Order: sequence, then C-alpha cells, then structure tokens
Amino acid sequence: MSSDPARFIRRTPPGEDRERLTCGECGYIAYENPKIVVGSVVGVDGKVLLCRRAIEPRRGFWTIPAGYMELGETVEEGARREALEEACAELRLDGVLAVYSIARIGQVQILFRAGLATPGFAAGPESLEVRLFAWEEIPWDDLAFPSVHWVLQAWREAGDAPLGAPRGNPAGDLRGTTPLKAAAL
Amino acid sequence: MSSDPARFIRRTPPGEDRERLTCGECGYIAYENPKIVVGSVVGVDGKVLLCRRAIEPRRGFWTIPAGYMELGETVEEGARREALEEACAELRLDGVLAVYSIARIGQVQILFRAGLATPGFAAGPESLEVRLFAWEEIPWDDLAFPSVHWVLQAWREAGDAPLGAPRGNPAGDLRGTTPLKAAAL
Ligand SMILES: [Zn+2]
Ligand SMILES: [Zn+2]
Repeated sequence: MSSDPARFIRRTPPGEDRERLTCGECGYIAYENPKIVVGSVVGVDGKVLLCRRAIEPRRGFWTIPAGYMELGETVEEGARREALEEACAELRLDGVLAVYSIARIGQVQILFRAGLATPGFAAGPESLEVRLFAWEEIPWDDLAFPSVHWVLQAWREAGDAPLGAPRGNPAGDLRGTTPLKAAAL
Repeated sequence: MSSDPARFIRRTPPGEDRERLTCGECGYIAYENPKIVVGSVVGVDGKVLLCRRAIEPRRGFWTIPAGYMELGETVEEGARREALEEACAELRLDGVLAVYSIARIGQVQILFRAGLATPGFAAGPESLEVRLFAWEEIPWDDLAFPSVHWVLQAWREAGDAPLGAPRGNPAGDLRGTTPLKAAAL
C-alpha cells in the first residue's frame, strides 16, 4: 500500500456489501471508521474553561479541551488526558453531557460535564491560552467548531441539575453535515 | 504497505509522542483508532428483544442488535441500521442508555434505549433467531458479551423513567479489560 491517497480506489471487497477504500497497488483495504473525539465542558464557579488553539485546524479560535481518543484508553481516560494535555487541568467527570455525530467528517464526539479535581490550569503545548469565561463573556464569534457552540448551550441548559440523557445534534444539523464556514458559530 | 500484519512494526513517527503501527515496507502509518459499536436495548411491552448470533464471534449466543458504526452515518442512524439488519426491526430511539469502553479490544459502545417504531421483527441474515424475553426468561448464561449483561441490567434499572446520564462500565471492569472467558456472563 502506498501512503499516497491517490493510489486508493473505491471497490467492493468479496463478501461485503459496500465500497471500501482499497490500495490499487497491493489490495490493502483501509477500513474507514468514524473517529471518536472525547472532551469536557469544565465548569469552575459557574464559569467555563476554554482553550485558544495553538494548532490547526482553527488556530487562534476557542474550544473546550477535547481531542481524538487513543486506542487502549477508556472514554473517561481520554477526556481527562485531553484536559491535562491542553489545559494542564485534572478533571472530575460528572457524566456524559452530549453525544454528537459529525457525519461530514466521520466523527463522533462524546462530551462530558466536568469540574476541576484539583485547582489550577495553564496552557499546554496545543493551547495559546487557557482561561475561564463567564457565560456573557464567551467569545461566540471566535469558537473553533459548531459543536463547541452546541455543547456550551447544552451545559448552560443543564445547569447544576443531575444530567439527563445526553444531548444529540441540534435540530438544525441532525447529521453534522453543515460545512464549517456556513455553520452558525 | 502489505496487508500482512507481520510487516508492521511499532515506531514513533517524527513529531509524535507515541508509537504507531508502521508498514516496514513503505512507511504507511496505520493509525489504530478505537472503533464505535452502536446498538439498542429494544423494549416491547416490558420484554426485551434479543438476537441469536448467526456469525462469529460468539455464534449461537444472544445479543442486542448492535454492530460497528459506518463512516458517513450518525450514531442514531447506525443503531437503527443494525436493528434493521439483524432483527428486521424499525426502531424509535429514546436516548443513550449507556456508553461503555472495552479497552481490551479498542471499542466504545454507544447503546440506546429503544422501542419499535412499527410492529414486527424477524431474524436478519446475521441472526439465527430473534425473540422477545421477559426479564426472568433472559438466557444470562448464553449472552454473547459482558456488555450485553451490563446494558440489560442498566435497562432494567432505568425502567420507564426518563433517562439520566448514560451508565458507564461497571465498577468491576471499569476499563473493559476482563477477558471474555473470565467475564461474568
Ligand atoms: Zn499498498
Ligand atoms: Zn506498504
């Protein structure tokens, strides 16, 4: 198999019922699975912790601590690892606040409601800046992704009450297919 | 890249902080991501719908309708597709009942509470048999996977009440690392 994606072609392997990305050179089948993003809305005294991204995509924009789950960890471990990496923050997870599907890019986001397990946070290597925002201070026009907008709204609506079933995608984008630039941020 | 896994070696790519499975021939990096299983506990008049597996692993054992999420669909679409494939059942999803991590095999399971959207079900090609079980009829010794046991307990505990935050792994197997044969079934 080549690492050159141009050498991959779509074809239906024997015994399967859909096309798979297959290497035209050696026949290797690259099963394309949805990827899992794990992250947390971290509340501290009613404020929310946001990180300004030091990396692409969306460098300079604000997001919650979140990233791709690694093999061998649990969703909870992944969410805590991301907060440690991006915000040097140790989290206490409260439960799953939202499960979003971003079908456009094959992503599932499992997002927790969390607090700090120990005081303190700081910008990790993937963040330019980490700070707490009161609700009315949130930089809505400078959020990195539509789902950050969605989950902050879900967090606000949940308040301090016990969590219900996780929120799903908003009615306006049930499949997560709105292009990034057209998405209401 | 070869499709022969023996040609893959573990090494740390430039700029990364962990080992990745890399093709010894061409350098292709096979990012190993956790895979998402989507499924549903389908309740019908207080009974639960189970499928007897026609395929390996665990052929002949009972499970809920569930399977790997495909790229391009949402978690809800995936859960409904699996029920259609395995039980010819059209579901009405009620919400996420449980999110389990099976770290041993790199799996995350997103499992819904559901009912039938339209009456009727039947064994699909991946099932030997599909039937409804009253709680006291559930074949606990013949369930296919530990998580089927877990989620049926969660479903029973939730009853007909509004769902709370999704259940996670049970305290006895927080990371989902108990080998299948040792797991309490
Ligand atoms: Zn190849
Ligand atoms: Zn190769």
